[in-house]
Amino acid sequence: MSDNTLSKSNLNPNVSVDCVIFGFDGEKLKILLIDREQVMVGDDGEKVYALPGNLIRNDENLDSAAHRVLNELTGLHDIFLEQFGSFGDPDRLTKKTDLAWLKSIRAQPDARVITVAYYSLVRADQLELHASGFAKDALWHDIDKLPSLGFDHDKIIDSALKELRFKSKYQPLGFELLPEKFTLGQLQKLYEAILNTELDKRNFRRKILKMSFLVPLQEKQIGVPHKPARYYTFDKDMYQNYKSNDFYFTL
Amino acid sequence: MSDNTLSKSNLNPNVSVDCVIFGFDGEKLKILLIDREQVMVGDDGEKVYALPGNLIRNDENLDSAAHRVLNELTGLHDIFLEQFGSFGDPDRLTKKTDLAWLKSIRAQPDARVITVAYYSLVRADQLELHASGFAKDALWHDIDKLPSLGFDHDKIIDSALKELRFKSKYQPLGFELLPEKFTLGQLQKLYEAILNTELDKRNFRRKILKMSFLVPLQEKQIGVPHKPARYYTFDKDMYQNYKSNDFYFTL
Repeated sequence: MSDNTLSKSNLNPNVSVDCVIFGFDGEKLKILLIDREQVMVGDDGEKVYALPGNLIRNDENLDSAAHRVLNELTGLHDIFLEQFGSFGDPDRLTKKTDLAWLKSIRAQPDARVITVAYYSLVRADQLELHASGFAKDALWHDIDKLPSLGFDHDKIIDSALKELRFKSKYQPLGFELLPEKFTLGQLQKLYEAILNTELDKRNFRRKILKMSFLVPLQEKQIGVPHKPARYYTFDKDMYQNYKSNDFYFTL
Repeated sequence: MSDNTLSKSNLNPNVSVDCVIFGFDGEKLKILLIDREQVMVGDDGEKVYALPGNLIRNDENLDSAAHRVLNELTGLHDIFLEQFGSFGDPDRLTKKTDLAWLKSIRAQPDARVITVAYYSLVRADQLELHASGFAKDALWHDIDKLPSLGFDHDKIIDSALKELRFKSKYQPLGFELLPEKFTLGQLQKLYEAILNTELDKRNFRRKILKMSFLVPLQEKQIGVPHKPARYYTFDKDMYQNYKSNDFYFTL
């Protein structure tokens, strides 16, 4: 299904939304990309991937458009999405492979498109993906091994990564991304994946334990080949309170 | 001059930029509004003001559009502008007075317009304003005594204020807004104007003096009817370094 349907005329030719969905699988930071149904490949012979994104409808607001488009292309729903920037270079849709693809799905493939970008960070391995619309597939990719991307999506991802890393410094992180009981080692892995750097274990623990929403449990790991680590959990109310009050945390 | 000129066809009917220019005059926080040339007044008989904003040209990027539009309407140039959000509710241009005004200046007055918003904080009393284009006048207004505003500009201003207040907590502030030599009292006034709250003098000084880019001078005030206060200055290099490294400062 392309947008070449009855509702075509209801799409605004000049404004789109794009979603940068970061995923954590317990080990690495990933990003959700769609494989657009296109026989043509990039100049270097590689397949071209893209962020889930499409034109907005004339009767919906930007936030609704982002949720709808993400759902239509990847099957994801009820994801917290945050707007982080708009991208509107006049030449952002002018690559040959992109134009060929736009001609196959858009009523006005040459129209200038400004895109409003949203991002999110989710648990990658516990969400079901169902590609549909012009997405042939929706797959997680390692953030450090990105394939060829259409349009200016590399620039949009860079910008979202900056925002995510910056936010991780002043808002608590991990509630939706770790199991209910987790070790400080698991929490450190999450920060290391996002910041793409190794952190000093001792320093990390000293700073992170100042977070009063981090609650130590009596329970420890069982059956591990090293000294069993203590489990922690998040106090949900305190966590949300810190989150909404912009708590500052510098690693 | 309206945009009803030769270059009209070059304007994108669906995308605009709006500029929220905050100004500090040593005492209060202000905002720059234009008086759009319109005989018609709001439903309550009041004149309607607006943020400096207009449609983007099809051949310019968003940042350039913001600088051009701000300059065309208010005469301001070389102002640091930062994008902070896009606004696109389908009903944002549907007030009667707004529609009447749009009909007088736009080729497609009924087109849905998504606006990309920028903000800045400048020294209000040292910049020359020259209204032109469809701006009959460009004037500073007290942030706590805003007149009737067109479109969704009250919502855009609220959002910009939040961004400004948030930023003031993690980036140093004041370099472009205070005289080269200033007292801690003047610096406190700036923070109080932005945060719209009175701050405890002792607490403020204790925290602000941790900023190593704040350099005490030998010189003190002369001819004041109270104990003369010491002058301070900013170390420009250190200030910029802190600014680019997102230094956290909680008042």
